[in-house]
Amino acid sequence: MMDLSAIESEVIDGRTKGFPLDAEPVAIKDLAARKWNVLRQDLPFPLALLKESALDHNQAWMRDFTTDCHVLLAPHGKTTMAPQLFQRQLAGGAWGITVATVNQLGIAVRYGVRRIIMANQLVGERDVIAAIALLSRHPDLDFNFLIDSEEELEILTSAAVAYGLKCPFNLLLEIGVEGGRTGCRSERQAIELARRIAGESEVVLAGLECYEGLAVSGKSEEDVPRVEALLETVKRVALACDAEGLFGGERIILRAGGSAAFDIVARELPTRLSRPVLTILRSGCYFTHDSGTYERLLGPIRERSGTKWLNRPGLKPALEVWAVVQSRPEPGLAILTMGRRDVSYDADMPRPLAWFRPRGHELPLPAPRDWRIAKLNDQHAYLELPPGTDLRVGDLVGSGISHPCTTFDKWQLLWLVDDRYEVKSAIRTFF
Amino acid sequence: MMDLSAIESEVIDGRTKGFPLDAEPVAIKDLAARKWNVLRQDLPFPLALLKESALDHNQAWMRDFTTDCHVLLAPHGKTTMAPQLFQRQLAGGAWGITVATVNQLGIAVRYGVRRIIMANQLVGERDVIAAIALLSRHPDLDFNFLIDSEEELEILTSAAVAYGLKCPFNLLLEIGVEGGRTGCRSERQAIELARRIAGESEVVLAGLECYEGLAVSGKSEEDVPRVEALLETVKRVALACDAEGLFGGERIILRAGGSAAFDIVARELPTRLSRPVLTILRSGCYFTHDSGTYERLLGPIRERSGTKWLNRPGLKPALEVWAVVQSRPEPGLAILTMGRRDVSYDADMPRPLAWFRPRGHELPLPAPRDWRIAKLNDQHAYLELPPGTDLRVGDLVGSGISHPCTTFDKWQLLWLVDDRYEVKSAIRTFF
Repeated sequence: MMDLSAIESEVIDGRTKGFPLDAEPVAIKDLAARKWNVLRQDLPFPLALLKESALDHNQAWMRDFTTDCHVLLAPHGKTTMAPQLFQRQLAGGAWGITVATVNQLGIAVRYGVRRIIMANQLVGERDVIAAIALLSRHPDLDFNFLIDSEEELEILTSAAVAYGLKCPFNLLLEIGVEGGRTGCRSERQAIELARRIAGESEVVLAGLECYEGLAVSGKSEEDVPRVEALLETVKRVALACDAEGLFGGERIILRAGGSAAFDIVARELPTRLSRPVLTILRSGCYFTHDSGTYERLLGPIRERSGTKWLNRPGLKPALEVWAVVQSRPEPGLAILTMGRRDVSYDADMPRPLAWFRPRGHELPLPAPRDWRIAKLNDQHAYLELPPGTDLRVGDLVGSGISHPCTTFDKWQLLWLVDDRYEVKSAIRTFF
Repeated sequence: MMDLSAIESEVIDGRTKGFPLDAEPVAIKDLAARKWNVLRQDLPFPLALLKESALDHNQAWMRDFTTDCHVLLAPHGKTTMAPQLFQRQLAGGAWGITVATVNQLGIAVRYGVRRIIMANQLVGERDVIAAIALLSRHPDLDFNFLIDSEEELEILTSAAVAYGLKCPFNLLLEIGVEGGRTGCRSERQAIELARRIAGESEVVLAGLECYEGLAVSGKSEEDVPRVEALLETVKRVALACDAEGLFGGERIILRAGGSAAFDIVARELPTRLSRPVLTILRSGCYFTHDSGTYERLLGPIRERSGTKWLNRPGLKPALEVWAVVQSRPEPGLAILTMGRRDVSYDADMPRPLAWFRPRGHELPLPAPRDWRIAKLNDQHAYLELPPGTDLRVGDLVGSGISHPCTTFDKWQLLWLVDDRYEVKSAIRTFF
């Protein structure tokens, strides 16, 4: 059971970006009573918001998809680092939460998550000690993390002895690919490391993991064979480890699946082994989806998943960043009050979705398709538009983003709104 | 007088990235007593740190430079958004602080800064109202901000009337360039807007401003004529406005000068007008300097500034991000525990400066010049090095960054260390 009372009671004030400087400080739980509305300019710009209807839609979509495929979901918490969203994801059927660092592990545990996969190696001495302390304080914590080297195994076993680890660490052996990121590069190397792990009493081989997302192009003819080949390796290593009795624990975890090609993982990864297998996806971006990278990648996923998923509406973008037109210095240029500090720019520039004239419009109008954000500075966006476009200083522009992770980490507070942009609550992040 | 007691008394705990999860929470003022050391692994990685000796050096350098040129400094606070650093900058002779948004204005005012230039237009209704409230609560606040359109003037004057502004807004008319960001594109347009401003009782024309930094290439033969041309325009508009008596107030502010070519501004901008002129630079990055963009731009600045500045040691990089080697998956590749969420990547990739083997080294060794960070993911860095390099899982790597602004905004806490990496204090940011 998660306990969010500390977050909901925390009083927010004008020090937090996005919160009105001239408003009385308020606890998140009392926010709805303020009846703030983004379009009524009750809040300062830029601001980041989440549309609750889209979150609900995406949650149901992914629940049905994973149920159909008989796989579990441990969504990557690093995307949002928002315990309030973790709670929604767990309530919506997620098995657990994935994290990337020990700091993120600490946040998840603090607010009550108890099934956690750290999709990363654990090697920093201070982090190993902190993990041992956390496990000792929370005996109900099911914590699994990655290993891909003997050096890491030595660090772990020495620290376990030195700092009094009580129950063995649960390790997921990571399978990588040549030219990729972390992970063992060959089956032989993986199986040798698995044997070493099985020979140590401070650790348990709890399963295998790979991350197929980095090499996904969005072209099925390339992605399917590439992802399948990686999954085949994982399955072969799993069968070999199982045959040698290298796995410890009552169940075996097989884990993969970012947000880019999770359908292939869901279909191909499940494997019959000598004890119960938990096949777990780690997709993090499905929940807010986006208006760029993941929007493009969803098409192939739906096509590969058959008529049912082609006919059903896809995921919806929940995350928008709104800014004001602060200058119209040239006929074809508007400068917006948002920049690199407010919105993702690692995958694509933000995409204008809607605009709104205060005291002129009832609801936002769709942004014309020829509006284009060409450039960002730290605190400014350059919006190019056809000369003569009726967009004035003081108008509002809402943009969709590409790659949710790098927008979430720019905000300690995102507004949760309904379809009329009325503020229902706020989501606190921990980066 | 700034009052940082609230920041220094604030208790930090493991929710903050960079703070050890297993340590007792501590107030910043009590941090030094912990005698934490980065190299002793008392802290988790990744972490961002500031070298106090480099900050002190850079502060003295810039104080002498601006004194030599008879200009004032209102360093851009948006770089660090750290009131503790604002205090050092003001104590080191800065005239005031520059900010980019009303949220940043609020932070500066809250901790006691009273001379503030917002290098941006003020157009969002909530922001205008908040600024009026702030001015009313702090009659000693000298607040100046930019204007470049009649639409903005209308927003300001209507709000001033509607929300009871007591003293007129101090406006700096922004001069821009064709193809640039904000700012009037022609002298005629600027002077017409100045006349409109002078005709309104809710606002005062307090001075002029331009930002020359966006177009700076680092090649003096291109930069000098380009920046001089912009400054000439500013000076012509200043003389014209002065001749027509359009300036209000007892002094006239002329402001320009990012961190890219501040020497040209310092030499060329000072102008004799009919009342006292404050010539103000807004450089923000000199204080921490960097190991990329600004390092490259400093060479031409020193060359243009004569023997004294060529012979004197230049600015030093104060900001480093340290991470652990989490994997050595291929002979020529090390994966580090830092990514897009920890370090700037908008200008250049981070540059490995030093490495350290726990229980092997006394102090960090310089990183070989052929180490290169080729890529970042959200939470990982790809360090390419010659095959056979003796860098192991568990070793530490410290990187310099390019463009300080986009590293600061990734950390709520940066460690202030001495040259032996002993923690002396921590710097809290507000993004």
